[in-house]
Amino acid sequence: MRNRVWRLARRPDGSISREDFDLCDEELEENDLPEGQVLLRNRLFLCTPAQRGWMGAKPGGHVPVIECGQPVIAFAGGTVVASRYPDFPVGTDLRYFGTWSEYQMLDPEGPLVERIEPGLDLYEGVAIYTLNMLTAYIGLVYIGQPEAGETLVVSGAAGSTGSTVVQLGKILGLRTVGIAGGPEKCAFLVDELGADAAIDYRSEDVSARLSQLCKNGINIFYDNVGGEMLQAAVDNIARLGRIVLCGQIAGYDGGSSPGPKDMMELVYGSVRMQGFISTDFLDKYYEIRAKLREWVESGQLTHREDVREGFENLPEIYASLFTGGNSGTLVAVIDPTVLEGWAPADV
Amino acid sequence: MRNRVWRLARRPDGSISREDFDLCDEELEENDLPEGQVLLRNRLFLCTPAQRGWMGAKPGGHVPVIECGQPVIAFAGGTVVASRYPDFPVGTDLRYFGTWSEYQMLDPEGPLVERIEPGLDLYEGVAIYTLNMLTAYIGLVYIGQPEAGETLVVSGAAGSTGSTVVQLGKILGLRTVGIAGGPEKCAFLVDELGADAAIDYRSEDVSARLSQLCKNGINIFYDNVGGEMLQAAVDNIARLGRIVLCGQIAGYDGGSSPGPKDMMELVYGSVRMQGFISTDFLDKYYEIRAKLREWVESGQLTHREDVREGFENLPEIYASLFTGGNSGTLVAVIDPTVLEGWAPADV
Repeated sequence: MRNRVWRLARRPDGSISREDFDLCDEELEENDLPEGQVLLRNRLFLCTPAQRGWMGAKPGGHVPVIECGQPVIAFAGGTVVASRYPDFPVGTDLRYFGTWSEYQMLDPEGPLVERIEPGLDLYEGVAIYTLNMLTAYIGLVYIGQPEAGETLVVSGAAGSTGSTVVQLGKILGLRTVGIAGGPEKCAFLVDELGADAAIDYRSEDVSARLSQLCKNGINIFYDNVGGEMLQAAVDNIARLGRIVLCGQIAGYDGGSSPGPKDMMELVYGSVRMQGFISTDFLDKYYEIRAKLREWVESGQLTHREDVREGFENLPEIYASLFTGGNSGTLVAVIDPTVLEGWAPADV
Repeated sequence: MRNRVWRLARRPDGSISREDFDLCDEELEENDLPEGQVLLRNRLFLCTPAQRGWMGAKPGGHVPVIECGQPVIAFAGGTVVASRYPDFPVGTDLRYFGTWSEYQMLDPEGPLVERIEPGLDLYEGVAIYTLNMLTAYIGLVYIGQPEAGETLVVSGAAGSTGSTVVQLGKILGLRTVGIAGGPEKCAFLVDELGADAAIDYRSEDVSARLSQLCKNGINIFYDNVGGEMLQAAVDNIARLGRIVLCGQIAGYDGGSSPGPKDMMELVYGSVRMQGFISTDFLDKYYEIRAKLREWVESGQLTHREDVREGFENLPEIYASLFTGGNSGTLVAVIDPTVLEGWAPADV
């Protein structure tokens, strides 16, 4: 059978362009499917900043490396179309770290493969209860260790992960301040997500505003941005404060995202600054999704996806993650039938 | 009665000099001693880098601020010479955050005041089982959370705190690498303290040596130095590594000690970087000292003090902390009788 695959042509230098990838038309021999594996039709992909790191990574670090010539790795949802593993028959919906290809073979017992929970369709299981939502929960709850009444500040608060963190903060009883760019996003934080306050980093002095809004200091800073946002938070951190390092916009495209300018602030303040990746808590995924689902179904937790279509458009769809053109979780759908049952307003 | 007091004359700019302090000859009215307080004769002071921070600090931060004109704050040991608190009669030995003065009044139930344990004299209680040793234990055990078999790297390893950390690392079953300046200090780390390896930062490429010596990465980095040492450690940190921020040499004299150049390394590595001050664990002091005492008395944990004498020399004694002229814990003795029973070889 014919299988199209997007392979990394070269390591992106700064922003992402179509020339960084090759669209390859390849043959896939269904008869080659090894015992114990399944053949999956990939149907949708999540677009995450982390992938950008993998494209630019050098071997030897802590990051999966996508070598030039290899298929691009992505968090994916798909359906079994051929199986040599009886527990995973044709028709089984899975989510997994897959590749930008139409079809792929996979060991369904591999470490990052999960069945979609009963009661969820593939779209819900991948695009809504997604890695970004899990990352928001893991960072806030396991790394931030919040106590009700504390003050939470979130950078990149209108983004896919940030907007979930803001809402979880309110659900967990925290005073929550979001930082975002522009009046529309700030209004969204307060009016739609229930943030107690919003700071527009484009028009306001973030450090001065944090000092006004957080009189007793910031207890938890959930950082999706780094750089000046991180420095402003360190300047206003409370004693025994926690800084959750989720992402650093400047750090994904090979740029550097330096730490705070004086580490003594962390010493004197007994501050904990901690990085994490969601797969550190892989064994908690089902449990966390069950909680998130309760909150979504009770209306306490809202979500927005920005759905784009077309396998052949994957590079452009992915690039829009960094140009600010998207709003909500960026999802690339390559089989539009996964959207059946979802009215345009839902997505 | 007459009481001499060293008061801060101005905020030190860079290195410490005598002109930063005023020696004041003052009157102390014993009859003014309030109910519930004791009059202490200060007999020895510990000299710690943290004091330098207090001298330069601005109000509003996390640090005790020594205002100009105020007595210099120091960790002290002394004896009650007049009491209006029956539980603390004349002759009681205490340790406390005191001031550079010959005498001072104190509430003995205050938060940072402790009785010297039975079986220890004042010198042992203050100069040996000292704040530096407690800091070493707290940082390694409570912040570093070591597991036997892990690899520990210590910067400033030949210093007062660092040399205790190196030995505690070996006691706790860790592979331990120390970083220090010069061949004598490196030999001391390996031959006297039992470190598995030492790196001379003056003559070696620290990052390259760490990469050779820690093939599976650094699990715990205990940092007394910051700057390039911290960067070298981040470059070689293991996944789920912990960076214990104890001190930052460059950060004490008002200079800045910047964080690592790319925070994404901490994200991808799920690295925890955590500052602390020993008083966060005040309620554990007696328990920790009991453990340290067992190890000292069984010969597993050695200690060195650098004892200097003379109340009128306090600024020069303190300044030697930063000029590298001292070896071991720097102790300023202002009543030489506390050294009775300690042969010169012991101190």
